[in-house]
Amino acid sequence: MNREALIEATRSQMPEKRWRHVQGVVDTAVELAERFGGDKDKAWLAALLHDYTKAWATDRMEKLIREEDLPKELLEHDKELWHAHVGAWVVRREHGIDDEEVLDAIRYHTSGRERMTLLDKIVCLADYIEPGRDFPGVNRIRELAQNNLEEALLAGFDGTIKLLVDQGKRIFPLTVLARNDLLLTIIKNKG
Amino acid sequence: MNREALIEATRSQMPEKRWRHVQGVVDTAVELAERFGGDKDKAWLAALLHDYTKAWATDRMEKLIREEDLPKELLEHDKELWHAHVGAWVVRREHGIDDEEVLDAIRYHTSGRERMTLLDKIVCLADYIEPGRDFPGVNRIRELAQNNLEEALLAGFDGTIKLLVDQGKRIFPLTVLARNDLLLTIIKNKG
Repeated sequence: MNREALIEATRSQMPEKRWRHVQGVVDTAVELAERFGGDKDKAWLAALLHDYTKAWATDRMEKLIREEDLPKELLEHDKELWHAHVGAWVVRREHGIDDEEVLDAIRYHTSGRERMTLLDKIVCLADYIEPGRDFPGVNRIRELAQNNLEEALLAGFDGTIKLLVDQGKRIFPLTVLARNDLLLTIIKNKG
Repeated sequence: MNREALIEATRSQMPEKRWRHVQGVVDTAVELAERFGGDKDKAWLAALLHDYTKAWATDRMEKLIREEDLPKELLEHDKELWHAHVGAWVVRREHGIDDEEVLDAIRYHTSGRERMTLLDKIVCLADYIEPGRDFPGVNRIRELAQNNLEEALLAGFDGTIKLLVDQGKRIFPLTVLARNDLLLTIIKNKG
């Protein structure tokens, strides 16, 4: 795999603003991997590719979900989740990325899931706190991320859940499962 | 079925305070059934029995779940949910209650579920707003319940979810599914 070619291919999928976000997630994910003992190369790769199809038209993603080997139940879930699964499928097809750990970190970066891997957590948290992010509570999450990956990510999910409640929007069930599971991990780690 | 005997049997399962709560839920559920076109007899029955085993020892419920025809996955879920399913099982066994609509309203009164029936909603909402309840936001839910069953119940679930987030406690995934589904119903009804 040629890093430069992959960077260019990724950049070409999205507008400049989204690309700046991706660069922020890459830098943050590599930092978090260093801090928490994750694999820096995998963190770099998953972060670079996490939003590969985020800027694609919904129709284009829908067509792939319908016609290719992608889970059909995605069609019943929020469209917000499509780019994560479609993105993992596309980077495997187009760039031969076949590391399942990296692909899973791409697939679950938006929703989280139960039993998140270290890499899942790193990419998901980096997506919350990369330097371009600005939302109420983000600095508290950044502070927590100095010391505790799980507590920082929990704070991220908690903020998302409360925001969705206040906005009268749907909550991804996977996010609740991810959050409940993190809570257990945090309690166990303290105990 | 002898109503008086059923009342006495229920009362004998719990301390006085819990029994006052049950009476409040019964009155409120019958009122809500009148207001929203539900079956008053079923509302009465499901409300009377909804907390039948709530005051039982956890061990006693666990034994039934392990030994009887009850879903074993309950053991992996929060103990808070046990009394709803165990209660439905016990009132069928002990009192011959075999109306599945009533039994479901008992089973799902704590968590809610997707595609809640009218009776499910009535019992669940009555449990939130019976006169003995006192928590931040309960009066707003009572006001909503004057006109809109779904909006009132959504406000109940939303409050519960935010409270559990703030308290660092697990959220029942079924409650999130119930809430997401109510949101869709409310949007459809307005549309």
